[in-house]
Amino acid sequence: MDKLWGGRFKKEISSIMLDFVASIGFDKKLVKYDIQGSIAHAKMLKKCQIIAEDEANKIINGLSNILEEINSGNLTVDDQSEDVHTWVESQLMAKIGNVAGKLHTARSRNDQITLDERLYLKEEINIIQQKLKDLMEILLMVSKKYLGIIMPGYTHLQHAQPILFSHHLLAYFFKFNRDLERLQDLFKRVDVLPLGSAALGGTSYPIDRQFVAIELNFSKVSPNSIDAVSDRDFIIEFLSDAAMIMLHLSCLSEEIILWSSNEFDFIELDDSFCTGSSIMPQKKNPDAAELIRGKTGRVYGHLMALLNVMKALPLTYNHDMQEDKEPMFDTVEVIKKSLTVMTGMISTVHIKQENMTDSLKGDFSNTTELADYLVKKGIAFREAHRIVGEIVLYCIDKKKNIEHLNLEEFKNFHSTFQDDVLSILSPADVVNSKNSYGGTSIEKVKESIKEAEKTLEYI
Amino acid sequence: MDKLWGGRFKKEISSIMLDFVASIGFDKKLVKYDIQGSIAHAKMLKKCQIIAEDEANKIINGLSNILEEINSGNLTVDDQSEDVHTWVESQLMAKIGNVAGKLHTARSRNDQITLDERLYLKEEINIIQQKLKDLMEILLMVSKKYLGIIMPGYTHLQHAQPILFSHHLLAYFFKFNRDLERLQDLFKRVDVLPLGSAALGGTSYPIDRQFVAIELNFSKVSPNSIDAVSDRDFIIEFLSDAAMIMLHLSCLSEEIILWSSNEFDFIELDDSFCTGSSIMPQKKNPDAAELIRGKTGRVYGHLMALLNVMKALPLTYNHDMQEDKEPMFDTVEVIKKSLTVMTGMISTVHIKQENMTDSLKGDFSNTTELADYLVKKGIAFREAHRIVGEIVLYCIDKKKNIEHLNLEEFKNFHSTFQDDVLSILSPADVVNSKNSYGGTSIEKVKESIKEAEKTLEYI
Amino acid sequence: MDKLWGGRFKKEISSIMLDFVASIGFDKKLVKYDIQGSIAHAKMLKKCQIIAEDEANKIINGLSNILEEINSGNLTVDDQSEDVHTWVESQLMAKIGNVAGKLHTARSRNDQITLDERLYLKEEINIIQQKLKDLMEILLMVSKKYLGIIMPGYTHLQHAQPILFSHHLLAYFFKFNRDLERLQDLFKRVDVLPLGSAALGGTSYPIDRQFVAIELNFSKVSPNSIDAVSDRDFIIEFLSDAAMIMLHLSCLSEEIILWSSNEFDFIELDDSFCTGSSIMPQKKNPDAAELIRGKTGRVYGHLMALLNVMKALPLTYNHDMQEDKEPMFDTVEVIKKSLTVMTGMISTVHIKQENMTDSLKGDFSNTTELADYLVKKGIAFREAHRIVGEIVLYCIDKKKNIEHLNLEEFKNFHSTFQDDVLSILSPADVVNSKNSYGGTSIEKVKESIKEAEKTLEYI
Amino acid sequence: MDKLWGGRFKKEISSIMLDFVASIGFDKKLVKYDIQGSIAHAKMLKKCQIIAEDEANKIINGLSNILEEINSGNLTVDDQSEDVHTWVESQLMAKIGNVAGKLHTARSRNDQITLDERLYLKEEINIIQQKLKDLMEILLMVSKKYLGIIMPGYTHLQHAQPILFSHHLLAYFFKFNRDLERLQDLFKRVDVLPLGSAALGGTSYPIDRQFVAIELNFSKVSPNSIDAVSDRDFIIEFLSDAAMIMLHLSCLSEEIILWSSNEFDFIELDDSFCTGSSIMPQKKNPDAAELIRGKTGRVYGHLMALLNVMKALPLTYNHDMQEDKEPMFDTVEVIKKSLTVMTGMISTVHIKQENMTDSLKGDFSNTTELADYLVKKGIAFREAHRIVGEIVLYCIDKKKNIEHLNLEEFKNFHSTFQDDVLSILSPADVVNSKNSYGGTSIEKVKESIKEAEKTLEYI
Repeated sequence: MDKLWGGRFKKEISSIMLDFVASIGFDKKLVKYDIQGSIAHAKMLKKCQIIAEDEANKIINGLSNILEEINSGNLTVDDQSEDVHTWVESQLMAKIGNVAGKLHTARSRNDQITLDERLYLKEEINIIQQKLKDLMEILLMVSKKYLGIIMPGYTHLQHAQPILFSHHLLAYFFKFNRDLERLQDLFKRVDVLPLGSAALGGTSYPIDRQFVAIELNFSKVSPNSIDAVSDRDFIIEFLSDAAMIMLHLSCLSEEIILWSSNEFDFIELDDSFCTGSSIMPQKKNPDAAELIRGKTGRVYGHLMALLNVMKALPLTYNHDMQEDKEPMFDTVEVIKKSLTVMTGMISTVHIKQENMTDSLKGDFSNTTELADYLVKKGIAFREAHRIVGEIVLYCIDKKKNIEHLNLEEFKNFHSTFQDDVLSILSPADVVNSKNSYGGTSIEKVKESIKEAEKTLEYI
Repeated sequence: MDKLWGGRFKKEISSIMLDFVASIGFDKKLVKYDIQGSIAHAKMLKKCQIIAEDEANKIINGLSNILEEINSGNLTVDDQSEDVHTWVESQLMAKIGNVAGKLHTARSRNDQITLDERLYLKEEINIIQQKLKDLMEILLMVSKKYLGIIMPGYTHLQHAQPILFSHHLLAYFFKFNRDLERLQDLFKRVDVLPLGSAALGGTSYPIDRQFVAIELNFSKVSPNSIDAVSDRDFIIEFLSDAAMIMLHLSCLSEEIILWSSNEFDFIELDDSFCTGSSIMPQKKNPDAAELIRGKTGRVYGHLMALLNVMKALPLTYNHDMQEDKEPMFDTVEVIKKSLTVMTGMISTVHIKQENMTDSLKGDFSNTTELADYLVKKGIAFREAHRIVGEIVLYCIDKKKNIEHLNLEEFKNFHSTFQDDVLSILSPADVVNSKNSYGGTSIEKVKESIKEAEKTLEYI
Repeated sequence: MDKLWGGRFKKEISSIMLDFVASIGFDKKLVKYDIQGSIAHAKMLKKCQIIAEDEANKIINGLSNILEEINSGNLTVDDQSEDVHTWVESQLMAKIGNVAGKLHTARSRNDQITLDERLYLKEEINIIQQKLKDLMEILLMVSKKYLGIIMPGYTHLQHAQPILFSHHLLAYFFKFNRDLERLQDLFKRVDVLPLGSAALGGTSYPIDRQFVAIELNFSKVSPNSIDAVSDRDFIIEFLSDAAMIMLHLSCLSEEIILWSSNEFDFIELDDSFCTGSSIMPQKKNPDAAELIRGKTGRVYGHLMALLNVMKALPLTYNHDMQEDKEPMFDTVEVIKKSLTVMTGMISTVHIKQENMTDSLKGDFSNTTELADYLVKKGIAFREAHRIVGEIVLYCIDKKKNIEHLNLEEFKNFHSTFQDDVLSILSPADVVNSKNSYGGTSIEKVKESIKEAEKTLEYI
Repeated sequence: MDKLWGGRFKKEISSIMLDFVASIGFDKKLVKYDIQGSIAHAKMLKKCQIIAEDEANKIINGLSNILEEINSGNLTVDDQSEDVHTWVESQLMAKIGNVAGKLHTARSRNDQITLDERLYLKEEINIIQQKLKDLMEILLMVSKKYLGIIMPGYTHLQHAQPILFSHHLLAYFFKFNRDLERLQDLFKRVDVLPLGSAALGGTSYPIDRQFVAIELNFSKVSPNSIDAVSDRDFIIEFLSDAAMIMLHLSCLSEEIILWSSNEFDFIELDDSFCTGSSIMPQKKNPDAAELIRGKTGRVYGHLMALLNVMKALPLTYNHDMQEDKEPMFDTVEVIKKSLTVMTGMISTVHIKQENMTDSLKGDFSNTTELADYLVKKGIAFREAHRIVGEIVLYCIDKKKNIEHLNLEEFKNFHSTFQDDVLSILSPADVVNSKNSYGGTSIEKVKESIKEAEKTLEYI
């Protein structure tokens, strides 16, 4: 197996050890970024006359060729090297001979690996942001399409008050919008060039880090070499942001699962996003939603893993840090797939509006309105709350819906009730009364949709 | 025990149940913010003529009196209520009578609790940021005081290259600076008024949320009531940021512990930040550093706890969310104390500079320089690396320091070596050769100190 | 503040440091065990003639008096000492003078603290086991009381097959039984005396550890002093077992919440285990179940915290390990309360059997039976599965229940169907057909109840 | 892609959905166990006359052939099926035609997958136990080989008392022994046959579960079908046990890293278990130890992931549970490799005994002995502790080793000191004085080695 060291060693590495420490099995995912970084590095070495122009050109051309072959599928990374850096260098050596050895001038794997990770993550953050926007657009589209449908709003999974279905969906829109903002904030901290920090203390060659930063499209150059090679904050912060995205997806998934149940029956998922049972022929399961919910735990685990790995490490690079890559790679894949599948699921879902609305009948979710009615007639809220509580008990005992009581029955509980009480208790009345900013009235939700549209335009 | 509901219930709550669900034991920490929020709410109810002016004034005065009594220590929250909101309302009732019941108009505990949490967290974030700055200032001060001292830089806890002690400390400066930035980014997302969302769908009273936002110094008003009462992102994001701060503190603690050991002996902690042993009279232990390192696990645990609690909850409020407070409160305390103690420890530490420098003798940490020397003479880096590896083996066998070899010995390994090799191998030579941006040369570290000073001024 | 060291120190400890490291605020919970351990230690010192008989008697009497005063409520631990060991010694000093100083002979806080923890945990494990049994008994009692009620069995939260409600409850019985077993296994590893390991290497006094083990009712004496003072496995294993108990409780809680919803409406919780809303008068929330579900995250967090704290600590005692106590104490409280509340909730719940059974109408949960019918007539299972899938689609299109199809309709799908198909599709038929060991037929569930009863007797 | 359902579906599954839910990419690891389980199931179907003898024989032979082809490397699982069960059935179908469809009689993927997992885990637990024993044997061997070497024992990473190196290593022996015991306890709970539980409620076929249990070498048959298909306790318990093993390995790794540092220099790792640096030619890094330490976080993450996944799932099977496999598989690999590499590293390490012993000079780690000396002369321990603390300060001021003080100097601190004090302070004297059970004297460590040898024989 190829490796970039060894002069100081008398004995060969043991094969179980080599298998244990080799990272090529997963860091090959970085090959594209590793080569991009090396090309920029070689250009800088040329510009700064650290290596001769013709040597630099050979290196740059060699690397470009390797990159092309990889992109075209003619070359794939095999597992015969210790890591991706070694593999690239050995490929280059095979192509252009010993001059390849000059590429590693003024550079260490310590600054190289974190460069690769930053290039990778910048690209993936952009993709994830786009996928978040796709989901937000679908949520917005469905909100607009079904504007006006009333469903129960829940607290404690109990019917609380009637709300607009669109208002409910838009709650997720705003949650995912915060996720977008967090990724934007994170991006600033990923967008910092570490190359030039070398092993840990910088380099004695007259390098030009600003040049490399411009070549690779970084906004900032890292100010402290020791920090640069020991820093994995940007991966942990990414995993934290990812955990939050999964958290939001898990809540939406939970609701999809509930709404798909025989008992709720508020939606039907499209066949294309369900699977069946090997034994029970009637089954049509909300698998995608369940699996997204399950994968939330997986991403949490990755976050916990890396927080653990980095805890209490003395500066600077320690081999423990090799464990940063698999959690990052897997999280990126899980997030992208989960967002894609959720978007597909939402965009094809069938809404059973009549079931949503029917479920409000006799559910007492209009009682806050009734209490407020009394308050507006001058009764203190606490007292009104108590009176309405007793009306609820009366209805349960008599098996009546509160909206079907007559005025006399109301008056038995308090003399303040008058005719007008009978026209405030329908779901639509209740929903549209909630007309303050952020509320669920159709007027406010229309405004909210406009706000959401504007948000999407600007991001 | 006082509670804000009950009309609908036939039976009393069981005492084990009441003990289980009561949150007053910990949410009393929010009493100050709860009253501030209630005063602003009452002012708005008055301004919008939802309650009469004289009633509102009674409520506002009553609340102000309660707040004063708490602040002056004449009143403390007892545990006889279900939660802090109930306690405040029962106090108000005792003071001004039944009109107190009007305060809860157009409001629910669901929007009230998250308001209290946001007010609390905004204040605490500011305090933590100040403590981070205090620590950064001490790190900067010590870096300036000891500028020039050389110590081994480590990778894999092995001597790698000599570095400036100040350069090492400044690495932490930049780590903590990222923590500051993250808290700043978080602050934007905490600084959003949820009040007015009521139970989950908004309210039918003609409230003015913007007025309340201005009263309470919030920059934004939450755009969706369902999101507002179900959102705990801001606490999770705070815990994530806190976990990162602890991670950085744990690494610094680890180094303090290592450096205090008999073997390293690079520093001596001040007696005022150590404890001894009940059995071993000679012991002087770096307890504070150990305890900070240990408390890192505690904060990680809090983050994991809340991520778990919130996973897959259907909207909107669920009682699980009561579990958001204790992790937040404890994390705030741990972070503040850990930062204070670390600042105290660093500001009183005794640096044993001669031990740091002595440890570089014969440690081969100058060999990168030697390899670079060969490269600059035209040898490819890979080849130079191999040659120097062999020189290292030679020195180990002969028990010689590399800096004590004579020219002839060097020439035995490669003819390229010349006289000038003998003047590049001292620690100071090695350190000062690393003169690229972010490097460890005294010139670059001086520039870095200026950059750090400027950073501190602007935040 | 009292402390057990100091001769070697020139300066006083800083007050922020003292506040940071003092553990008396929480380790006072161990005071009873600390004194028990000290009494046994003093008896041994006397027996081995390490201290004089009259001195030992003074110490033993003094400690016994302190313990009595604590038990009777006449003495409480104040926070003026560094830790509970110091507090006890200072109390003893006040009572019997300087001879108290002889108690710490042949002992260190390092072996003393883990002794206290083991004594505490042994007692609490027994209590938790009893509470687990109480819950198992209630589950069994309810299973027996409602034997025969049929409800939908779920996979993917979709109706899968009809099952007996009792069979479902007994699933939890067997889950909690595994928890009991795990605690039993753990107990063996807690039940080991560490005292006599002193600071880390044992002691030069001629102590008798077996004597102390017998005094304190330990089955084993720790075989290696270094292991004994550095080992916290038993606390981590306890937290793992506790996490599993909470996991099981969280699943049962989830089902209670679902079943209490307007949509499922399978059960009604007793008023004594619910709370209401401050704004919505109709609300009756399954708070206890939600809170148990939420506290699951909290216990997970404690486990993660301690795993983190202990990771990569060099032997032997490190101050980080002080962080083992609060997670353990809090977990014990959470587990005990959660079990008690769950037992109370289950023992008072109202089962709405007709709703359970009604929900099976037309839900296709009898289709596995239908497929098996075909198989028994000679058709391969895969083919039978496909045929029944098509019958389901037909019923959905025609809005028919499968149990209402006539023979002709069945024959349209396959000629094999005969008259007897009409008598296998009722929920009771389906349930009772599942008559293999562990199955849901009434016969097998009766057997299972007997097995469960026997299990409870033997534990 | 092959799947085992579909008759009830009108539309094809979407390709992104199929990619998302397919588990074949990782559950193919179970193929061997899946076939073993299917063979036993087919034998039982034959024996119980549920399928005809010739059909059963065809199935059994077909499955046996597939297994042989897999074992001989002539057949590998491709990714064209939904999961491993489907793949096996489609292979069987290709081999023996439609009769293959009869295999799934009286069985569901719900009981089949947990059967596969249990068969897999039973085998792997045995392998891990063997690897634990291998490591314990090496620790014992090295303890015996170096019996008598004295090193500093540490608390707080400060020299505490001299100990035998062998005593220190044996501490790990006993830690790993507890890990063995835990795996043994776990095994009982894995060793339970779930097959026959079918989808969730059992089956209407007259199966013989005991027969299958005997065929597959299970000691117990699961007593409740609902529990059996929803239970993943055994995997979580395995991950908990694995986390503890990694914790122990991480502590040992930490010490190997410390001891390999320039500052400690207590050991030198063999070249075959180290790697070098791409830039620094002198570097020889303890990578394996670092990587094991790092992988501890990974296993913690897996535990946290699965605890999360399973939390609050309603019974019975939910698709989230598919997420149980990857953490289990990866943990098994990590544990096995980490144990192997640690065993290799320890068995080849070079011990630098003189450095260990030299580091004790003047380190005051003999002061407990000195305090005990005074106690044995009649002074209370607390007082003796204070006197010795002052002697330590004196030595630090005068830069003297405590073992070099003369009698007069001792007497200046207390008149009790006599000639005999001069013969108790050498490391060997101190070590051998600790002669109580579990202590570090050479006599006790010899006994401990015998105890350890006996332990290894019996497990």
